Amino acid sequence: MQNTFGHIFRLTSFGESHGVGIGGVIDGCPSGVLVDMEFIQNELSRRKPGQSAITTMRSEEDRVEFLSGIFEGKTTGTPIGFLVRNADHHSSDYHNLREQYRPSHADYTYQTKYGIRDHRGGGRSSARETIARVVGGALAKLVLRQLGIHVYAYTSQVGSICLQQTYKDLNLSQIDSNIVRCPDSKTADAMIELIKEVKKEGDTIGGVITGVITGVPVGLGEPVFGKLHAALGYAMLSINAVKGFEYGDGFNVSQRGSQMNDLFYSNENGEIHTFTNHSGGIQGGISNGEDIYFRVAFKPVATLLKPQETVNIQGEKVELQVKGRHDPCVLPRAVPIVEAMAAMTILDYYLMNKTRLI
Amino acid sequence: MQNTFGHIFRLTSFGESHGVGIGGVIDGCPSGVLVDMEFIQNELSRRKPGQSAITTMRSEEDRVEFLSGIFEGKTTGTPIGFLVRNADHHSSDYHNLREQYRPSHADYTYQTKYGIRDHRGGGRSSARETIARVVGGALAKLVLRQLGIHVYAYTSQVGSICLQQTYKDLNLSQIDSNIVRCPDSKTADAMIELIKEVKKEGDTIGGVITGVITGVPVGLGEPVFGKLHAALGYAMLSINAVKGFEYGDGFNVSQRGSQMNDLFYSNENGEIHTFTNHSGGIQGGISNGEDIYFRVAFKPVATLLKPQETVNIQGEKVELQVKGRHDPCVLPRAVPIVEAMAAMTILDYYLMNKTRLI
Amino acid sequence: MQNTFGHIFRLTSFGESHGVGIGGVIDGCPSGVLVDMEFIQNELSRRKPGQSAITTMRSEEDRVEFLSGIFEGKTTGTPIGFLVRNADHHSSDYHNLREQYRPSHADYTYQTKYGIRDHRGGGRSSARETIARVVGGALAKLVLRQLGIHVYAYTSQVGSICLQQTYKDLNLSQIDSNIVRCPDSKTADAMIELIKEVKKEGDTIGGVITGVITGVPVGLGEPVFGKLHAALGYAMLSINAVKGFEYGDGFNVSQRGSQMNDLFYSNENGEIHTFTNHSGGIQGGISNGEDIYFRVAFKPVATLLKPQETVNIQGEKVELQVKGRHDPCVLPRAVPIVEAMAAMTILDYYLMNKTRLI
Amino acid sequence: MQNTFGHIFRLTSFGESHGVGIGGVIDGCPSGVLVDMEFIQNELSRRKPGQSAITTMRSEEDRVEFLSGIFEGKTTGTPIGFLVRNADHHSSDYHNLREQYRPSHADYTYQTKYGIRDHRGGGRSSARETIARVVGGALAKLVLRQLGIHVYAYTSQVGSICLQQTYKDLNLSQIDSNIVRCPDSKTADAMIELIKEVKKEGDTIGGVITGVITGVPVGLGEPVFGKLHAALGYAMLSINAVKGFEYGDGFNVSQRGSQMNDLFYSNENGEIHTFTNHSGGIQGGISNGEDIYFRVAFKPVATLLKPQETVNIQGEKVELQVKGRHDPCVLPRAVPIVEAMAAMTILDYYLMNKTRLI
Repeated sequence: MQNTFGHIFRLTSFGESHGVGIGGVIDGCPSGVLVDMEFIQNELSRRKPGQSAITTMRSEEDRVEFLSGIFEGKTTGTPIGFLVRNADHHSSDYHNLREQYRPSHADYTYQTKYGIRDHRGGGRSSARETIARVVGGALAKLVLRQLGIHVYAYTSQVGSICLQQTYKDLNLSQIDSNIVRCPDSKTADAMIELIKEVKKEGDTIGGVITGVITGVPVGLGEPVFGKLHAALGYAMLSINAVKGFEYGDGFNVSQRGSQMNDLFYSNENGEIHTFTNHSGGIQGGISNGEDIYFRVAFKPVATLLKPQETVNIQGEKVELQVKGRHDPCVLPRAVPIVEAMAAMTILDYYLMNKTRLI
Repeated sequence: MQNTFGHIFRLTSFGESHGVGIGGVIDGCPSGVLVDMEFIQNELSRRKPGQSAITTMRSEEDRVEFLSGIFEGKTTGTPIGFLVRNADHHSSDYHNLREQYRPSHADYTYQTKYGIRDHRGGGRSSARETIARVVGGALAKLVLRQLGIHVYAYTSQVGSICLQQTYKDLNLSQIDSNIVRCPDSKTADAMIELIKEVKKEGDTIGGVITGVITGVPVGLGEPVFGKLHAALGYAMLSINAVKGFEYGDGFNVSQRGSQMNDLFYSNENGEIHTFTNHSGGIQGGISNGEDIYFRVAFKPVATLLKPQETVNIQGEKVELQVKGRHDPCVLPRAVPIVEAMAAMTILDYYLMNKTRLI
Repeated sequence: MQNTFGHIFRLTSFGESHGVGIGGVIDGCPSGVLVDMEFIQNELSRRKPGQSAITTMRSEEDRVEFLSGIFEGKTTGTPIGFLVRNADHHSSDYHNLREQYRPSHADYTYQTKYGIRDHRGGGRSSARETIARVVGGALAKLVLRQLGIHVYAYTSQVGSICLQQTYKDLNLSQIDSNIVRCPDSKTADAMIELIKEVKKEGDTIGGVITGVITGVPVGLGEPVFGKLHAALGYAMLSINAVKGFEYGDGFNVSQRGSQMNDLFYSNENGEIHTFTNHSGGIQGGISNGEDIYFRVAFKPVATLLKPQETVNIQGEKVELQVKGRHDPCVLPRAVPIVEAMAAMTILDYYLMNKTRLI
Repeated sequence: MQNTFGHIFRLTSFGESHGVGIGGVIDGCPSGVLVDMEFIQNELSRRKPGQSAITTMRSEEDRVEFLSGIFEGKTTGTPIGFLVRNADHHSSDYHNLREQYRPSHADYTYQTKYGIRDHRGGGRSSARETIARVVGGALAKLVLRQLGIHVYAYTSQVGSICLQQTYKDLNLSQIDSNIVRCPDSKTADAMIELIKEVKKEGDTIGGVITGVITGVPVGLGEPVFGKLHAALGYAMLSINAVKGFEYGDGFNVSQRGSQMNDLFYSNENGEIHTFTNHSGGIQGGISNGEDIYFRVAFKPVATLLKPQETVNIQGEKVELQVKGRHDPCVLPRAVPIVEAMAAMTILDYYLMNKTRLI
């Protein structure tokens, strides 16, 4: 259950790591949207393995084939099926996982829940599943672009290395200028250094990705259970390895109300804005026209290239030695996934908001 | 839209702060559940205003009237309607809010989205709406209790005052032993002191509530968009004033994978467990049988008893002077709300999980 | 489960026949709609028992109390809670039903499904539940009226007495001019005669209600599982005692394609229409701008005032003798219910259709 | 929107007649189900074009490729993606349809709703879309079989030729013994004769399919908006060309309540049954353990091989001359589609019913 995301703009996803491929169906996409195939493929390339020295060496071309819903280059309003075939199988690398539970992976919980699982490469629980999200997000971005809405994400923390600037002080066009996707080159260098070191040890490291959405009109978000930040949080927490979500001032709760309230003013055009933006662009669950920004915590990748103690399906103690090819740090490749989930969420709520008035 | 929460066990809520009352409909509650009215009313009392020296003095009795779905003291499987009438209106306190937008409140966003709003006491955006959640949560707790599942929440941070112990080192039966609902009496005293000080200044303060769920069987959570922690995060982020959610190690990402992985072992009964619980009881979005724990960040209450600069509906600069009675810190009263949302989420996913096998 | 109807404009209903009352929550109603209370109350009066010599003599005032979502006479876009309290209980009339299963009622199926039921007056399965639908439908009609969309229903068959004219040949403003709600007075007289005769025998009779919707713009209906007629059929089949639904030519399948196709033409304004309307205003599941019309079959009321053989909860053979007050024919009171369900469906799909383009 | 069917067992479908193919995603299928590929392929063959002298000569192999959710021959509980590629394109046959609206087809309504359409072979509105339903239904049947539930459908009327026997008097194992799928060979012969005659004239003819479901346990169906027959009706009305649905006595409303009530009795095993089954196996929207039966009306195929008057996109009058290959009567091929929709509906409600008790 629940392989569908969204209410109006909906992505239904399917696929396993070592099966035929990863795919999905996008329903509710507005009609008449020009489908920029190059853009979509480029989004997939930002996510794909093997893209740099700090990602897994599994090398997949990840070419998307659209199966429906597009006619003469434009969306028709009918469901858009798509498929990205798996290519670089090394399924035999995973043979021992048929019987063993990898620590902090989903092997044990899937097996117990369903009584069966595709163990190869994590099967459905593999982060390869996020390919479908990136395709859906790319389409959503194409629509949002026409509405003047832009979605950005970047790596703002790796292990203990934190980017000090806020998004206001960064040039967001520089996100893809380095392989860790941190728009400050000096911090990026330090992050890359750390990831390489961790990789050498056969270990892994987590971090934080910051998301920013600009150009969102006032009014998106549905009281009371469809608050816009709750929808964004849900979207982010559904991404593999995510452990936390905060927006605006988030967990920074040391200050008083008088310091954190965002006072209103009218600008020269009579538009209402706030002097500060502690609220992160959302008040009462509804966008207020300021930039939306949020942070997403990722745990270290659970697959280590060091031996670990675990149990097998019979509950016997065994030593796990993973082969395969894995990311020492998931963040560089997770940046486009965070953007994709944010884009789909914003478009979904944009479309929903069209129904509030006749 | 979206005044319904849940998939199988569903709460639909309605009501405004100064209207007739707050109510809801609970659909999908299993039949045959003994409805312990005293317990439900007690849960409401834990949330109600005027309960202590550190909450608002607005005094509401908050008595729930059940309208359907219960027969001879037991649930019948049909929808359970309920209503808590509003009593202590001081609507005239809010007269100036008809024209003015309170900073960091939902006045401006509601007005812009809908072109109309009930300004009295915040209307639908008032935290009084959470009454419906507490009723729904109380029923969910009654069901979960039969399943051996228990839900706890407590105040773990107010401003900069942090509880140092983890939930493992605390006696969770002591949560209600003090008015701030922190199970360590020494930290509680400091928190209470701080809130009183903040109140005296006409200011407000935020903090963090920690949630703990014990007894959850392996298997709750639906890959890939219904991950159990994503559902919990969504539930928490839908509560007024919440700005962040994390579970397990959350935003604490400084350590390496080898330090954060939870290694499996079998106990004497052949049950599989993990030595540590960095995962927070959820792996791959599915409960793994360990305790679930999470943290929820609350911003300071936006209503201050000090003058603030703002704009009115015409966009003109005005000085806002709020009267009314307000909480200096929302956390003590938010504890039962966090529990309620957690309880409804867990029960919803418990029931959903019954459909995975024939 | 499933006490909610609709996708955007949603009614969640609750209540039993002899409990506190019948109520509901309407979510997703556009904001700014003037709530004409007299109109809503009048719709309830068209449904209420005791309204004429051919309905049950149970006499309920059926006054609706709105609990939320309306401010200074207008909808605010927040959920609209409402309650109609039950008054004229004769619960003791139903005492024997605690142990006995009435034939062709829901007593046995509810008891078996849930292990418990409120037997008084049929509990949740009572047609009294349709009060919530009439309130929801009345609000929907108020919105549709602003859009130039009008919904009509009338009794077109009672037992073997069939109205011969189609809706085109009838004056739909005359529907309420007689107590059976058939707009042809001569046929109405015959129907009334038949119902009186049946009533005298302690028996009951069924029939057909025809629905007509005018002014629907082209484009409502969602391929492929949200076809507009499928949504209408679902709405009608959810009404108590309904056994069939057809639209356009329906079960009249004796003719050939060349006789049943609706040929297109352009009128003087360049608008495209069809010469005939076998399609019933819907092609490919989407409204085509012609009138929508459909027929709904109702079985005879299952409650007879004659003795019937049945079994009790223990499975023992018993003779059932129903007391209470019952309708000999449900159709006159079902007319506003059919209209209500049609109105909610059309508004729901109207709002949904607003999301197809950016 | 709304290309997803079902609540727990859910089919999301995609694809156009002359695009890459037709496919879908089945979510919520129980895990551990043995996937009998031969059975599934055989169901597709029962639907496929070119199967006999009375169907279209378009010849498609219609081989299904499963893309996910199956591991070593069994379902894993994860979503099951599938694709049936289109092969026998004669898209040029449809070239004139780019500009012309075929009468009683969806060309005009799609074009007006979306501002764009894939005109080739009807695009998304083609009955070829039902392939996805047959695949979903085949999987549902495999699950239902394990539960002792069986789903049948057969042609019971073509034009004015009506099968006189009820399902009780027929041998349902003979449904596929002739090309029109009517289990009485004499009536079948007459039907086939009629279809051939109609075909020769370049005309088309409609009819009725009867569905029967045996072995359904007591308790399926959700009051009040998820009545089992409403769900079945919705499912049937979503099939192309369907104009009506009735169950049990349906539109046959000439008799009195005393003649139509189904009296209860206990059999030797203490099981409660009814002497008659006017209710069609459903009382109060919940299955009562008797056979479920229903009738579905299909209009004649709208595509004629005769010239027809119509308009083009500019609203100009034109003569339409359809080429292509078309069915003179859709019923023989619609039989497996009716079965598929019934099977998915029953399984969906079976799984839903598992959540009513803890």
